[in-house]
Amino acid sequence: MSENATIRGELCWGGVPLTQLAERVGQTPFYAYDRARLAARVAAVRAALPGGIGLHYAVKANPMPALVGFMRGLVDGLDVASAGEMAVALDAGANPLHVSFAGPGKRDVELVQAVASGVLVNIESMREVGLLASACERLGLPARVAVRINPDFEIRGAGMRMGGGAKPFGVDTEQVPAVLKAIGHAGLQFEGFHLYPGSQNLKGALIAQGLLQSHELVLRLADDAPTPVKHVNLGGGWGIPYFPGEQALDLAPVSDALAAIQQRMASELPGAQAVLELGRYLVGEAGIYVARVLDRKLSRGQVFLVTDGGMHHHLAASGNFGQVIRRNYPVVIGNRMDTVAREVASVVGPLCTPLDVLAERTELAPSEPGDLVVVFQSGAYGPSASPQAFLGHPRCAEVLV
Amino acid sequence: MSENATIRGELCWGGVPLTQLAERVGQTPFYAYDRARLAARVAAVRAALPGGIGLHYAVKANPMPALVGFMRGLVDGLDVASAGEMAVALDAGANPLHVSFAGPGKRDVELVQAVASGVLVNIESMREVGLLASACERLGLPARVAVRINPDFEIRGAGMRMGGGAKPFGVDTEQVPAVLKAIGHAGLQFEGFHLYPGSQNLKGALIAQGLLQSHELVLRLADDAPTPVKHVNLGGGWGIPYFPGEQALDLAPVSDALAAIQQRMASELPGAQAVLELGRYLVGEAGIYVARVLDRKLSRGQVFLVTDGGMHHHLAASGNFGQVIRRNYPVVIGNRMDTVAREVASVVGPLCTPLDVLAERTELAPSEPGDLVVVFQSGAYGPSASPQAFLGHPRCAEVLV
Repeated sequence: MSENATIRGELCWGGVPLTQLAERVGQTPFYAYDRARLAARVAAVRAALPGGIGLHYAVKANPMPALVGFMRGLVDGLDVASAGEMAVALDAGANPLHVSFAGPGKRDVELVQAVASGVLVNIESMREVGLLASACERLGLPARVAVRINPDFEIRGAGMRMGGGAKPFGVDTEQVPAVLKAIGHAGLQFEGFHLYPGSQNLKGALIAQGLLQSHELVLRLADDAPTPVKHVNLGGGWGIPYFPGEQALDLAPVSDALAAIQQRMASELPGAQAVLELGRYLVGEAGIYVARVLDRKLSRGQVFLVTDGGMHHHLAASGNFGQVIRRNYPVVIGNRMDTVAREVASVVGPLCTPLDVLAERTELAPSEPGDLVVVFQSGAYGPSASPQAFLGHPRCAEVLV
Repeated sequence: MSENATIRGELCWGGVPLTQLAERVGQTPFYAYDRARLAARVAAVRAALPGGIGLHYAVKANPMPALVGFMRGLVDGLDVASAGEMAVALDAGANPLHVSFAGPGKRDVELVQAVASGVLVNIESMREVGLLASACERLGLPARVAVRINPDFEIRGAGMRMGGGAKPFGVDTEQVPAVLKAIGHAGLQFEGFHLYPGSQNLKGALIAQGLLQSHELVLRLADDAPTPVKHVNLGGGWGIPYFPGEQALDLAPVSDALAAIQQRMASELPGAQAVLELGRYLVGEAGIYVARVLDRKLSRGQVFLVTDGGMHHHLAASGNFGQVIRRNYPVVIGNRMDTVAREVASVVGPLCTPLDVLAERTELAPSEPGDLVVVFQSGAYGPSASPQAFLGHPRCAEVLV
């Protein structure tokens, strides 16, 4: 975190010192997302991508409307996981031609909404073919579709695997030809393929390998496509470092793999564009969660900083969002950045449950009630992925700065 | 689940067949809580309690306003964990004299709200003494207080320990005399003690042991009380069986322990009432979660039932609410209760994440889209403890029936 600017001992986020930011928001706890960091991250990814590769933002990582609107201006398209997210994307001004919708359990009405909106639907089951055909007929509009593939390989290194083996996501490779045939028969507007092998992968070489395998698979399956492939969404799943010992992703091998894919696609799938779908990687490091210390308690030799925020706003930091072993997100006392002294303290929330922990026995600047605890790496899967109503405490605020 | 009534092969809840209930609610997914089961459970607990022991409902387990209103009529008081829950309790018609408020991080405004409402505040830190004294002075109202004790012993058998050792909850035993003295000096209206050693305990003998130890501790600390003890909240934490092999709690040893406590309290703390605070145990088994099968997918030999509900409504059933190892809640196909045939299937939700699992490879009646999946033991820590906004899907409904 050496890159973090400070003014008079305060962390600055979006150029604003933390206590001023808290006053501007008008309450704690809050999440703050930094436009400059978002833009810098998109620029860094662009620099690593060969020309012609599309970059999409996966809204699921952070659906705050203002942030989605900001990201829309930086990327080539938005990927959504529900009609709710689709509405956010369209309200943000996204061109429906550059919005795609994936999800293993799309409701009937969501498929109709997708056709009525003109977005691309990533088909994940034969059921969706029939429902989309009905929607087309009723609405007198085309259904733009791609097939989401559940590949016949697994990608290594992913924090969560979302492809390979038996999965509810996408169409098994073996079943793809039949689905393509049905798409052709139903008169849907076929545009391409989608794969998403896994998420939170910190190994560039393994991501590269997954991209190459995915592309290979698409080339193989494209033979059965009813019309030429225009769009190949190769997924994302690029990770960010959360815990001690984790290293930032090395993009060099990813870049090389994409260059090879780009070259081969030009000859074997002329007219098709490869697209990446990144969520956490674009926004995760641009966000912080800020809570205020309400009380400082010493219990049998241990220091507890009891804050007004906790797992109800930040489930992932509490370790209850898919983690098997709880580890601390990076945490600091944001208004005491110049303090050299350190004490071991646990940061907990206001909830009557031992699950409500933001940091367990970690080294922090000694602090007092009124101080501001900052949890870094909080730009993705924050408030929308947390049980905000739990125990009836107020919701957090969000600010784009 | 032999006790569940069915009509024409459908599970009945609150006396209503499941498909009719779904039509009444007007949507899936929904939670349904059965008044008769709630009342029967309260009656069973009353039958096991010696006369004179008070029974409180811990609103945190299920804060649905209609349910809180119903429970208010059955129990002797309501325990709340935030000003938000306090508002639900008071709106439900609870007498503030019988409402108590606990929480390790009460905000300043919450303490003022508590004084203005006349509820009992369980003090968890010296900080609260000063804030309550200020509130009293400003409002010209008394502050009713008890001291929440972090005991110097741990209770065994609890799924989550909330007392003993270093904890953010309550006041360490060793510090209680000083806090009692401060309460006296500040002129707060002292009423008693509160302990909550742990939750989800399925061992009656261990709960009994915890109650006896807690009572013993209260007797010891009562010597330093500024005024006679009127109220001793001995907590709850009684568990319900969720997983195969778990047995319902045996109340006999608990009942015996409470009788002994009652007898001894009459002589050593005359005028004091012992109170139990139960949440999950009163409501957990009275609730079901119901989701509709959207799709039936066969992926590489495994059956996936993709439903319109999932972890965003029922985080606990997905295994992401404090569980270390994910296990299946009891699940059935609620409109096929008469079907004898079984298949192994996984029940998943509509979210683009492998965390979105309601049941993994479990035996179910073979089912089709349109069928209703029922997750039992869902009356506590359901919607309020789940990330409902995750991925932008609709919220679940709730019905008291």
